[in-house]
Amino acid sequence: MCSEATGNTLGNVMDLVKPDEQGLIVAVVQHYQTGQVLMVGFMTKESLEATLKEKKACFWSRSRRQLWRKGETSGHVLDVKGIRVDCDADALLIECDPAGPTCHTNETSCFYKRVDFDGTVTLSGDGVAAE
Amino acid sequence: MCSEATGNTLGNVMDLVKPDEQGLIVAVVQHYQTGQVLMVGFMTKESLEATLKEKKACFWSRSRRQLWRKGETSGHVLDVKGIRVDCDADALLIECDPAGPTCHTNETSCFYKRVDFDGTVTLSGDGVAAE
Repeated sequence: MCSEATGNTLGNVMDLVKPDEQGLIVAVVQHYQTGQVLMVGFMTKESLEATLKEKKACFWSRSRRQLWRKGETSGHVLDVKGIRVDCDADALLIECDPAGPTCHTNETSCFYKRVDFDGTVTLSGDGVAAE
Repeated sequence: MCSEATGNTLGNVMDLVKPDEQGLIVAVVQHYQTGQVLMVGFMTKESLEATLKEKKACFWSRSRRQLWRKGETSGHVLDVKGIRVDCDADALLIECDPAGPTCHTNETSCFYKRVDFDGTVTLSGDGVAAE
């Protein structure tokens, strides 16, 4: 029986995800309409649970060692429209509708620097960030 | 002077990237035309160097502890069309033209499982993978 055709569940994500030895799961944030990759963060099981419950992206801040509800201070929350998990269940794709710029620099995406094949890095974003 | 307008370089990516304490940099692979996120892997400085030189994605296999030239055995190489690095230089976005399915299951993308807000995981890919 084909589980896809019948819509059978594979289980609950909280049982399926495989955090690394530090309890972290890579979480890629993608704009749900444009497909632009906005940022990469880390989730723990606890932050994934908060994300599912609140439908707003909640990460684990490795530097501050605490839950990080994205947009808590800036207001630039990420409304979650869809979530995917990868084949080996150690990465998440979070499809979001961002309430503002995702990057702390006010660039739309954190990936505002282009790398040429000779290794040269140049700015290539909204033009907000300057270094 | 605006470095973006003049195209001034910010430096070389090999000097700028900040691998974690294990020497790893998260690398998100995105289809350069459709925008579909295909997989997430890890690069080391050495694998990034190989990627730049060969213009094909080369990762670090954490399980095998060696360079992993994607497609080496399957033929499903990822031709690299563009590379971006994020604001804090610990994540890479690799824009690719994939020569075949990216996932080892033969799904186009490794993210072929959908997560509902109640945590339920269901298949949602090309219908190749069945569990």
